[in-house]
Amino acid sequence: MTATHRLVRLARRPDGLPTPDDFTLVQAPVPRPEAGQVLVRNTHFLVFPGLRTLIGGETRDVPLPPLHPGDTLFGPAIGEVVDGPLEKGRLVLHIQGWREYATPAATECRLLDGTLPDPVAHLAQGSAAYGALTRLVEVRQGDTVFVTGAAGAVGTMAGQIARLLGATRVIGGTGSPQKAQRLERELGYDATVLRGAGRLGRQLAQAAPDGIDVVLDTVGGELLTAAVHAAKRGARIALVGALDGQLSPDRAGGSAPAVLDTYRLLTRGITIAGYNGMDHPDVEAEWENCFGHWLRAGDIHFPYTPVLGMERTPGALPELIAGRSFGASIVEL
Amino acid sequence: MTATHRLVRLARRPDGLPTPDDFTLVQAPVPRPEAGQVLVRNTHFLVFPGLRTLIGGETRDVPLPPLHPGDTLFGPAIGEVVDGPLEKGRLVLHIQGWREYATPAATECRLLDGTLPDPVAHLAQGSAAYGALTRLVEVRQGDTVFVTGAAGAVGTMAGQIARLLGATRVIGGTGSPQKAQRLERELGYDATVLRGAGRLGRQLAQAAPDGIDVVLDTVGGELLTAAVHAAKRGARIALVGALDGQLSPDRAGGSAPAVLDTYRLLTRGITIAGYNGMDHPDVEAEWENCFGHWLRAGDIHFPYTPVLGMERTPGALPELIAGRSFGASIVEL
Repeated sequence: MTATHRLVRLARRPDGLPTPDDFTLVQAPVPRPEAGQVLVRNTHFLVFPGLRTLIGGETRDVPLPPLHPGDTLFGPAIGEVVDGPLEKGRLVLHIQGWREYATPAATECRLLDGTLPDPVAHLAQGSAAYGALTRLVEVRQGDTVFVTGAAGAVGTMAGQIARLLGATRVIGGTGSPQKAQRLERELGYDATVLRGAGRLGRQLAQAAPDGIDVVLDTVGGELLTAAVHAAKRGARIALVGALDGQLSPDRAGGSAPAVLDTYRLLTRGITIAGYNGMDHPDVEAEWENCFGHWLRAGDIHFPYTPVLGMERTPGALPELIAGRSFGASIVEL
Repeated sequence: MTATHRLVRLARRPDGLPTPDDFTLVQAPVPRPEAGQVLVRNTHFLVFPGLRTLIGGETRDVPLPPLHPGDTLFGPAIGEVVDGPLEKGRLVLHIQGWREYATPAATECRLLDGTLPDPVAHLAQGSAAYGALTRLVEVRQGDTVFVTGAAGAVGTMAGQIARLLGATRVIGGTGSPQKAQRLERELGYDATVLRGAGRLGRQLAQAAPDGIDVVLDTVGGELLTAAVHAAKRGARIALVGALDGQLSPDRAGGSAPAVLDTYRLLTRGITIAGYNGMDHPDVEAEWENCFGHWLRAGDIHFPYTPVLGMERTPGALPELIAGRSFGASIVEL
């Protein structure tokens, strides 16, 4: 009798935002590793908004393959080596999430070497935030930094990183009072602005009376519009995400239009730069080193919302899109 | 009997776009220079879209003073010294346009020293284009450059400068087939896209089949939206003007909203930077040197539309806004 495991397939292309019915939890034989492949028993994998783009059919410019009905979902995962060319029992990071057993090529696995004290922290989405804040906008001592999507997987890391890099005042945008409270209490945000709770411009003016030096944007849309209006002379804006497009029922996840006042951008000498990780190949290792040090020193937290067990996975992306997680959303097996 | 001269005053704050009736041509005594002032007989002055902003009441962030009803208009001008501490007969550049005689302080006058072969060329708006192309986006050999408002005072210089700096393909956006023709015939543009002549995205895809490396934007609005869509990976966009706001009847000239796809900006690692001349104090002298060399070598043209005589000045700004000029609009006395 062959051992079986469970995995998650895309059942159909969602009509608008995905629902649990768009995904199927499938029972299948545990795969047998081919030559060069490793059999890995997954322990954790990431639920990330980019999946909305990959299943939505708007994947131009996206560095990951699109997902079609019948395809198994994928994404960053951590697991233990069971068989194959790597040492049994070692923890590896790979990209075959959404299944209990995976068979990545050994060359696609990264052996975890203890750089981070907690293996799950390898699923933290801090690298892009760190890269954007050190390469594109270069946060300086005394800066006021606004993180548009502060309670997301990137945003929860970004605010803390900005502070550790010298920001004096860190402001976060989010969609719920509960998240706003957690941002201030647990992650050291000085103030928050709340989407849907009155004019963002007025809220930002209160949260940052002297204006904003740096914006780390993971959302786009009206939060970015307001951020440009509150930006100081010479402000630097880094774009690292586009949740406004990925979480919107009206879009397929491959666009995120924001209305930006170009007159303001030029009179204030403001710069907006999109962060593409491929342009900064040295960031990842540098970030992990810093992250490890900061975690061990207790200077940074890695907040995530666990999704417990494979049974919950068909609803995991819809829950993420509905805003029910704080920090990263991680399936624990 | 006191000698008189003519000057142009703002009669009232325009309701929407200015009309000739919003300006008054006034007869007044020729001013007497006070201590430290120079009496200058103006020969040329510039009509520029920024006046729309100055008379519109939306002057936050603008480095020039607002204009109220009763105020005399002003702007870059060239004239001959008649009296005062500077040598009589010398040509000077100053900022008191829109009048036959001006009395700038000697310290506000620049003696023209022959850097440019034609004194009127000092009214060319090339400095911001040169600064943006050399400091913000650094045009390289082989670049495809798109100038959104190619037939304007800045745009007519920008396309030529981009070419001289190494651009291989230069594309211009404009609003009339006549201007498009002149851009290609007289200023060396390789192709043009025409506002109001079908989808800009499609036109741009034809004009730049391999995509755009550099955008020099003087317009904003839908031209910039389309430019972002046609931009290549790593494209650099410089904002040096916001005509879309200044020439629009719905706005007062102090804003120019454009819809930009932030998802595209980040997946393609695109940068947008607003050019503020005050951040680049060394640009002006460097530009004039280059401009002088290029003019003498016949490598660059300074196209402008003359407005002949003070009688025509009340209509000069409305004519500019209506798109009736090519290149700079310059009153000749």
